[in-house]
Amino acid sequence: MRTTTHPFASPSLAHGRGGDGFDGWLLRRLAGRMAPAPLRFALGSVVVGPPGAGAVATLRFRDRRAILGLIRSPELHFGDAFAEGRIEVDGDLVAALEHAYRALESHDHVPTRARLRSWRWHSLRRSRSNVHHHYDLGNDFYRLWLDEQLVYTCAYFASPEVSLEEAQVAKMDHVCRKLGLRPGETVVEAGCGWGALALHMARRYGVRVLACNLSREQIRSARERADREGLADRVEFLEDDYRRLDRRCDVFVSVGMLEHVGRRSYGELADVIRRCLDPERGRGLLHFIGRDRPRPLNAWITERIFPGAYAPALEEALEGVLVPARQSVLDVENLRRHYELTLRHWRERYERAVTDGRVGFDERFRRIWRLYLAGSEAAFRMGSLQLFQVTFAPHGSNGIPWTRAGLYDAEAGSSWNTPTS
Amino acid sequence: MRTTTHPFASPSLAHGRGGDGFDGWLLRRLAGRMAPAPLRFALGSVVVGPPGAGAVATLRFRDRRAILGLIRSPELHFGDAFAEGRIEVDGDLVAALEHAYRALESHDHVPTRARLRSWRWHSLRRSRSNVHHHYDLGNDFYRLWLDEQLVYTCAYFASPEVSLEEAQVAKMDHVCRKLGLRPGETVVEAGCGWGALALHMARRYGVRVLACNLSREQIRSARERADREGLADRVEFLEDDYRRLDRRCDVFVSVGMLEHVGRRSYGELADVIRRCLDPERGRGLLHFIGRDRPRPLNAWITERIFPGAYAPALEEALEGVLVPARQSVLDVENLRRHYELTLRHWRERYERAVTDGRVGFDERFRRIWRLYLAGSEAAFRMGSLQLFQVTFAPHGSNGIPWTRAGLYDAEAGSSWNTPTS
Repeated sequence: MRTTTHPFASPSLAHGRGGDGFDGWLLRRLAGRMAPAPLRFALGSVVVGPPGAGAVATLRFRDRRAILGLIRSPELHFGDAFAEGRIEVDGDLVAALEHAYRALESHDHVPTRARLRSWRWHSLRRSRSNVHHHYDLGNDFYRLWLDEQLVYTCAYFASPEVSLEEAQVAKMDHVCRKLGLRPGETVVEAGCGWGALALHMARRYGVRVLACNLSREQIRSARERADREGLADRVEFLEDDYRRLDRRCDVFVSVGMLEHVGRRSYGELADVIRRCLDPERGRGLLHFIGRDRPRPLNAWITERIFPGAYAPALEEALEGVLVPARQSVLDVENLRRHYELTLRHWRERYERAVTDGRVGFDERFRRIWRLYLAGSEAAFRMGSLQLFQVTFAPHGSNGIPWTRAGLYDAEAGSSWNTPTS
Repeated sequence: MRTTTHPFASPSLAHGRGGDGFDGWLLRRLAGRMAPAPLRFALGSVVVGPPGAGAVATLRFRDRRAILGLIRSPELHFGDAFAEGRIEVDGDLVAALEHAYRALESHDHVPTRARLRSWRWHSLRRSRSNVHHHYDLGNDFYRLWLDEQLVYTCAYFASPEVSLEEAQVAKMDHVCRKLGLRPGETVVEAGCGWGALALHMARRYGVRVLACNLSREQIRSARERADREGLADRVEFLEDDYRRLDRRCDVFVSVGMLEHVGRRSYGELADVIRRCLDPERGRGLLHFIGRDRPRPLNAWITERIFPGAYAPALEEALEGVLVPARQSVLDVENLRRHYELTLRHWRERYERAVTDGRVGFDERFRRIWRLYLAGSEAAFRMGSLQLFQVTFAPHGSNGIPWTRAGLYDAEAGSSWNTPTS
């Protein structure tokens, strides 16, 4: 019994203490593991945790196995048990996850570099299968809860009241301004989703874009849209791996792909950037989910949602990609709270669609997506995940902006054209 | 003979080829080492290198020993020989150094982490002596060429035409806005120079500041200024090492000190930040000279100008200081071109003071400072050195700005007060 080390397993805070037998003991062990998260844990009539408003939610278990699994391997098992309905969460799911993650993080040790070295190898074939797993669920599904342009990455909210639609357009403009796009320039985009950014760049900034993606469904949809909008002559969508890119360009951009690259392939991404980017005029941007320090991603996410994904600490992205690519970091912006808000929009739309019976698939699928969206929102909210936009230019290039003021001045536009002499 | 590998040692470009004997051979070896820098090399009447306007400068040697030293150990020996007048540079000194650095960099190998591990230990005593070496030359000397407030770090030029005086005030405001200072808050400043920033923060933003510095001359001058301006009750200047700071504060700031910390002491700086910064409301800023990748600083600089100095790659500052301090990076801005321009102002003022006979000391001292200022300008110009401002807050803190727009909107001021819910 660990009654002295955590408040929720102590007699004063635990309900049903005394006479609750093995189930009570199990729940108190779990509560200890999750301390000091303000959560209640229940199995049948046995309840452990703070009473009344002292808890943000109650985790209700269907059977003892669900509790045992959670004590052993909380991240992975919680996801699986939640998906199967063996755990129900009564109350605020996002808040419950936020507190649970915080508790787990505080008990966790910082992994050593050595431990983190056990990454998977991302062959071209495995990358394709990883991408297929998540992104080829059918565009109709994503249309239910993404914005109208299907942008599946963090938006940029000039202020929190802005709509998701506006914020996704603002994000694309923010990226384009950071890159200082000039008409007639060439852009290579690695990992283009449904093509929204590539089309936006061509339409609004007059550039030519080569954009690649491994998802067949996404590429097909992107090509259709390019045809429909008369942009097919300026945007080329390639169903291929970023590693095969070798076209010289003025601008390299990748939004939401680095998470899927796998650390063993960082050097290959560095080679692509170095090979593609013009050493005099070039510049680039990486937009990715990161961490404050190196640590493995949530086990359930990497097993069930994004196979092989990894969110690097900023230092890992620099050491692994931008330093070997011989790039100079010009600007880093952390948009963590913007991803939290983006996810809140997605989750609310998703839940409306579930309620209205518009989400097909089975109950298990719907619960998986509920947890994935709520858990991601919680992770950005409590700082387990970060969102970095890193702007860079080749080492020694003086074709760089004088200040960042142009990013915030709609009239002035980009400041990439100011003095270079 | 390496006539096929570099143009300047080839017969078509070299003057005085044939019959110039050992001196010509030596100069051609040196030219090969420095290829493809557009430089001429001369000893007596023997000249090697491109004729006429093909070269930006001529390096004129007093004796063969100067050439041999340069071939053996270019960085350290050039500085020493220049200081002693055994090398003269006819032409544009900054451009000559820029091209020379670029040539050396292109021949150089990227140092491994292992090689870089041979850092010096920075004891409290050695740190004091290192600081004394450079900063206690007498305030009158620095008054000759710094701005009126004696700010000896990179300025922020809203546009390149702005005066140095304005740009130093703008830099201090830029830092204060990044930190979102609020009246009544407490600030700890590690390495405060002559106190300009500490006094600026107290005067304009109504905060209380504890600022430390190892330089006795600088601290004395800062205290006098605080008294004169009636700020002594709000700004405390401490003649001490940053490692002894242990006062809880809302804001931690350090401008131009990390370069002197020494990598073996990064963990101690991390401890100071973690110990001092309020985990809920805290935020901080590090402003430092950095690199695009880990490599040793110019040998002459670390031997003769800043003993024990090291300019870290961004990844080293993160891994060494901010990750162990459990901080989250919010914003990184690279102000490299601003330091180039700052140095141009300093150099021009310095040279005017030399011409007018206002710089005391001996000829050797004056040449050392000429080279140091010109070489630094060249290094920032060609990207050997970077200037990073990194804004951070404790891991998981949601008391962070919503966007960076407030930095660029004089009316709106800081955006640190926008939504945190």
